Amino acid sequence: MKNKQISLASRPKGMPDASTFQFDSVELPALKSGDILIQPTYFSVDPYMRGRMNAGKSYIPAFEVGQPLAGGAVAKVIESQADGFAAGDVVTGSLPWATQSVVSAGALKKIDTNLAPASYYLGILGMPGLTAYFGLLDICKPKAGETVVVSGAAGAVGILVGQIAKIQRCRVVGIAGSDDKIAMLTESFGFDAVVNYKTSSDLKKSIADACPDGVDVYFDNVGGDVSDAVIANLNFHARISLCGQIALYNTTETPVGPRIQPMLLTRSVLMQGFTIGNYSKRFSEGIQQLATWLQEGKLHYTETTVNGFDALPEALLGLFSGQNTGKMIVQV
Amino acid sequence: MKNKQISLASRPKGMPDASTFQFDSVELPALKSGDILIQPTYFSVDPYMRGRMNAGKSYIPAFEVGQPLAGGAVAKVIESQADGFAAGDVVTGSLPWATQSVVSAGALKKIDTNLAPASYYLGILGMPGLTAYFGLLDICKPKAGETVVVSGAAGAVGILVGQIAKIQRCRVVGIAGSDDKIAMLTESFGFDAVVNYKTSSDLKKSIADACPDGVDVYFDNVGGDVSDAVIANLNFHARISLCGQIALYNTTETPVGPRIQPMLLTRSVLMQGFTIGNYSKRFSEGIQQLATWLQEGKLHYTETTVNGFDALPEALLGLFSGQNTGKMIVQV
Repeated sequence: MKNKQISLASRPKGMPDASTFQFDSVELPALKSGDILIQPTYFSVDPYMRGRMNAGKSYIPAFEVGQPLAGGAVAKVIESQADGFAAGDVVTGSLPWATQSVVSAGALKKIDTNLAPASYYLGILGMPGLTAYFGLLDICKPKAGETVVVSGAAGAVGILVGQIAKIQRCRVVGIAGSDDKIAMLTESFGFDAVVNYKTSSDLKKSIADACPDGVDVYFDNVGGDVSDAVIANLNFHARISLCGQIALYNTTETPVGPRIQPMLLTRSVLMQGFTIGNYSKRFSEGIQQLATWLQEGKLHYTETTVNGFDALPEALLGLFSGQNTGKMIVQV
Repeated sequence: MKNKQISLASRPKGMPDASTFQFDSVELPALKSGDILIQPTYFSVDPYMRGRMNAGKSYIPAFEVGQPLAGGAVAKVIESQADGFAAGDVVTGSLPWATQSVVSAGALKKIDTNLAPASYYLGILGMPGLTAYFGLLDICKPKAGETVVVSGAAGAVGILVGQIAKIQRCRVVGIAGSDDKIAMLTESFGFDAVVNYKTSSDLKKSIADACPDGVDVYFDNVGGDVSDAVIANLNFHARISLCGQIALYNTTETPVGPRIQPMLLTRSVLMQGFTIGNYSKRFSEGIQQLATWLQEGKLHYTETTVNGFDALPEALLGLFSGQNTGKMIVQV
C-alpha cells in the first residue's frame, strides 16, 4: 500500500521554508510480530522540532536528511500484531510524519478519550502540559503572592503556566505579541496583566509597570531581548525556568546579548534549564493533577487547529511567527 | 586622639586607581556604653569590595563618598565599655579602614587564636572559606568521580573550592593566570590539572583537553570569556555556582557575550547566583567542618601578605591583576 510521508529535504540555515520539506510516497512494510499499523488523526507541532533539524548532539536525536520528520501524534490502530492493542484503539506516541506507519508497540500508549478529547493528549495532558507543570512547580516553586512572568504566554505551554500560577495564587503577568492574544489571556485565562512585546517602546519599563513588586519567577519560553527585559526586573532569590528559546532557534550566528551572570549573582537568582524527559518518572503524577484541574474547571484549554496532512510544514513554521493561540494541532 | 583612615574619594568609572582613595586624619569619639576601641591587625581585601564602590542597590550597601571604606578585619581590643569584651581580646568583624576605630560590640566576634592563626579568620575560617564550602557543596552537590572546574583557582576562594572538591573525590581542574600559580596548585594543592587562561590560544579546547569527560560542576569566580569557554564544555545536568565575576567588575559598558540560555536549556544545566549572607544560619556548621579538615591536614592554606596600613588600596587593586595567591591580607 502506498503511503505519503514528509521528510527533511535539507538542514535549514536560519528560518526553515518550504524547501526544507519533501513529500515522498513510500511502500509500507508488512507487519511482523509486535508491530502495529497506525493512522494518525492529530499531529502536534512544537518549537523544539526546529532544534532536531540541526546536526549535532542534543538531548534528542537530530532528524536525518531524507528521513521522515516525527513528533507527538494521536493515531488509531488499523491492524495489530502486538498484545494489548487492537484495531480501533486510540494511541499516542512520537510518530513519523506519514499518513500511515508501521511502528513497534513499545512506541505507543493507549489513551482514554472519555477523560478528554483525543487531541488534548498532545497538549494539556501531553508534553506541553507536563512541561508547564514541572517547569513551573518543580523548578520555580512559586509561593502565593509572588509575581510570575511567563513569555510566550499565549503558546501551548505559556497559557498553562499562567493558569497553574494562578492556582498557586500568584500574580501572573504574560508577555505576548498581539492585542487579540492579550485580550484572550486576561479575559478568558485569568492573567492579571499581559505586556505586548511587539508594541512596547521600552519593554523593561513595561514589565516593571506590570510588576510593581518585581519579578519572583520567570518561565522563559522565548529568550533573546524579551528575556533581557524580564531579567532586568528580577527580585532577590528569583527563579528562572528555561523552557524554550524560540526567538533564537532560527538565528544563523551565535546569539549575543548582555551578560546575565552579574545580575544572577548579585540577586542570588536560580536559573535551571530543563527538558521534559527529566521528569519521565513523574509523568503520571503530572497528568493526574492536570486532568483533575481540567475537570474541576480550574484549567482552561485552547487549540489552534490546522487541517490536512499536507499542512504540517506550514503549521510548524507558523509557530515561529506566533500564528497559534494555545496548542497548535494538525488534524488529518 | 588622631587616627588615620582611608575613604572613598570618588566613585571609580572602570578600574579604580590611587585617585579613588583619600587618606584622612580624624578624631576618635569618646567611648559610650557598649562601645569598644579596636586596633586592626589584619585587613582582608576582597573582589566584592569593588561592587560597593558603585552607587545603587545591591545585596550590600554601597560605600559612601567621603566615608571610610570597610571590610573584613581582625583587631585587638584596646578598651572596652561593653560586656563580654576586654582589652587584649582578638576579634573579627566588618571594620572601617582606619588605624583605630570605636565600634559597637554587636559588630564584633571574638576569635580563638589557639585553633588557628588570627588571619585565618579572614580566609579559610572566614568569608572565603564559607563561600567555597556552601557555594560548592550546597549548590553544586559534586559527586565522586565528577569533574569540577574552578576559575580564579589560585584566589582565596578558588584554592579552597578545588581542595574541597578533591575531598569529595572529584577530578579538579583549575583555571589560573600564571605558570607559578599552576605549579603550586598541582604540586601543593592537589589539583588534577590547571589551564592557563592567559597563554591558551583556544581556551575552549584547552578546557576540553583537561576535562576528557566534560564538565559536571563549574564554580565561577571570574565570568567573561573564561566562563564562556567552560560553559561550552558542560555536561548534561551540570551545575554552575556563580560566586564572582571579577573579569567584569571594572567594565564601564554593559558586558556583552554569547547568550548562554540555549546551552543551559538543552543540557538541563542549573546556574545559581549566591552571596554568602544567604547561608548565615549555617556559618557555624561550615566553620566547624573547615576547621576539622584543616586540623586533619586535608585542607592546605596560603596567603599573600602585604604590609602596612597605607598599602590597603594597592592590595585591593592587586586582586584585579591576579597579584595574590590564595587569600590577600594586609598586615598592619
